[in-house]
Amino acid sequence: MPLFSPIAWGADRSVRILDQTVLPQSEHYRELGSAAEVAEAIRSLRVRGAPLIGIAAAMGLVAGLRGQRGASRAAFLEQLADAAECLGAARPTAVNLRWALDRMTTTARETSGDAAAVWQRLHAEAETIWEEDRAMCRRIGEAGQPLVPDGTNVLTHCNAGALATGGIGTALAPVYLAHEAGRRVHVFVDETRPVLQGARLTAWELEQAGVPCTLIADGVAASLMRAARIDVVFVGADRIAGNGDFANKIGTYGVAVLARHHDVPLYCCAPSSTIDAAIPDGAAIPIEQRSPDEVRLIAGRAIAPATVAAFNPAFDVTPASLVTGYLTDRGCVQPPFSAPPR
Amino acid sequence: MPLFSPIAWGADRSVRILDQTVLPQSEHYRELGSAAEVAEAIRSLRVRGAPLIGIAAAMGLVAGLRGQRGASRAAFLEQLADAAECLGAARPTAVNLRWALDRMTTTARETSGDAAAVWQRLHAEAETIWEEDRAMCRRIGEAGQPLVPDGTNVLTHCNAGALATGGIGTALAPVYLAHEAGRRVHVFVDETRPVLQGARLTAWELEQAGVPCTLIADGVAASLMRAARIDVVFVGADRIAGNGDFANKIGTYGVAVLARHHDVPLYCCAPSSTIDAAIPDGAAIPIEQRSPDEVRLIAGRAIAPATVAAFNPAFDVTPASLVTGYLTDRGCVQPPFSAPPR
Repeated sequence: MPLFSPIAWGADRSVRILDQTVLPQSEHYRELGSAAEVAEAIRSLRVRGAPLIGIAAAMGLVAGLRGQRGASRAAFLEQLADAAECLGAARPTAVNLRWALDRMTTTARETSGDAAAVWQRLHAEAETIWEEDRAMCRRIGEAGQPLVPDGTNVLTHCNAGALATGGIGTALAPVYLAHEAGRRVHVFVDETRPVLQGARLTAWELEQAGVPCTLIADGVAASLMRAARIDVVFVGADRIAGNGDFANKIGTYGVAVLARHHDVPLYCCAPSSTIDAAIPDGAAIPIEQRSPDEVRLIAGRAIAPATVAAFNPAFDVTPASLVTGYLTDRGCVQPPFSAPPR
Repeated sequence: MPLFSPIAWGADRSVRILDQTVLPQSEHYRELGSAAEVAEAIRSLRVRGAPLIGIAAAMGLVAGLRGQRGASRAAFLEQLADAAECLGAARPTAVNLRWALDRMTTTARETSGDAAAVWQRLHAEAETIWEEDRAMCRRIGEAGQPLVPDGTNVLTHCNAGALATGGIGTALAPVYLAHEAGRRVHVFVDETRPVLQGARLTAWELEQAGVPCTLIADGVAASLMRAARIDVVFVGADRIAGNGDFANKIGTYGVAVLARHHDVPLYCCAPSSTIDAAIPDGAAIPIEQRSPDEVRLIAGRAIAPATVAAFNPAFDVTPASLVTGYLTDRGCVQPPFSAPPR
């Protein structure tokens, strides 16, 4: 089981994060004292992973408003709205961010009393969101146990592990529970260019937990499937539409096509907070476009001509037709999906 | 059209190569004076690309034996056999290497006269191999012209361009000729991890030639195909079996599965020297395994935990069933293939 926490309260209710941009070379923590600092950390991928950025945003509101406890209730709620807008604009694709901010904002409005009372309630709600996510991760893992018998070879893409959540991860949760239960499980880790979340984060956290894994370039998965060396694919999600189409890290759609071609089952693993039932299908999911320099540079060094154009969508959409099942906190389920309970 | 040459004669018939490991940051040429030096350059990917390593090996024999022109014929042929063995062991997958060495060795044996006469004949034969490759590239490009109408968006993987051949490339030959003819053609370039031949080499040579291109992480191609933004896929080959199965840079097989899923035509582009009719199908093609550090490091910097296992096959095999056609110096053809004429 992972022994680190990618997020925690810092001094005086600031937000303490493990800076994921410098892993695995350095295990560096940062204390973020304002909503703007948390938003910057989300935008720059210091804290990332759909469930985790929901938690970080909720905690960011608490950190950002701790200085407003003496303000009027109206001024507090106005500051809250500003902070929520700042955080909500940080990244567009993962719905968990907007979901957490909406939940916090609604909670504040529904809480009677002065600013201090509302802040206290927000603090409790942020902890509840975090605790719920931790519990949902475990239930996702439990739902996946029948899919990870002894000797299973898993393929995963990007990082949907403990570094992406408040608990043991989504896509990696079934792996951690199988490993904990003493079953042999091995993970092929797509390095996941351009940001290398697989190489830098998934490989790191699996090693920390003692789970056997093998890193591969993204182009290797197809030939592993053809050689029948992959039993099951687990991936996370940043937003799941009502019909089951889902957005996840760029490259996931290709993995899903390959899995279908080779008759390898693929499971989308996500907590209820990832479901956006207001969106009927994947075509309406906004896809974040990131800097071409994420493709042209690696660790600050040029790996391509400086002037070449690069296209860098951070996500792609996998249609529900390519998904074997959805591992959620409600078990292994099938679409259509309704909105999660608040 | 490309304006550089990745290979040339150096001083006193040494072999002058453009060191492809330091592109695009640096355009550095090296003079290689012995078969062992040429073998090292092939093994370390300073000179790469199936057709080009065939040419380099032939020229490497000439460079390596230039000091033996005064030896006895028997001693010369013995040295030739040693040099050919050294060069042939440099890399296992591309058959062009073995093909060129066999052709040179047979030529030497069939040439009468003393060592100086045999060396002179080898020199001429190496130039013939080079010239033939240049002509084959152009014929591949001509065979592909009907596939590149005005406004075509091409996807390519790895580098099968001028840097990989003695001429205008294989997979890029149709692109260069269409561009030269004034038709608009744009190339999506898979960066091609782990060695990044797409980012470092294909993007560089297309920019040099003024051909519009866009660099993408390997995981992006699937969503581009789904969005109907790719009209045709051109890839090279390192060895083509008699039935049409072919080995090419790792990741090619996945691209071929994706192309088929999206009804995008895929063409394997290669000169006759790439056909190994002695091998009935792809299962018998030896696949080179390279160092895990090519995956764990980029430009010398760690991008993964130092201790993580990594699996790094340099090639994969695409079955003939996924290939729309083979663009060769004999036109656009279909398997089965017989051995190329000497």
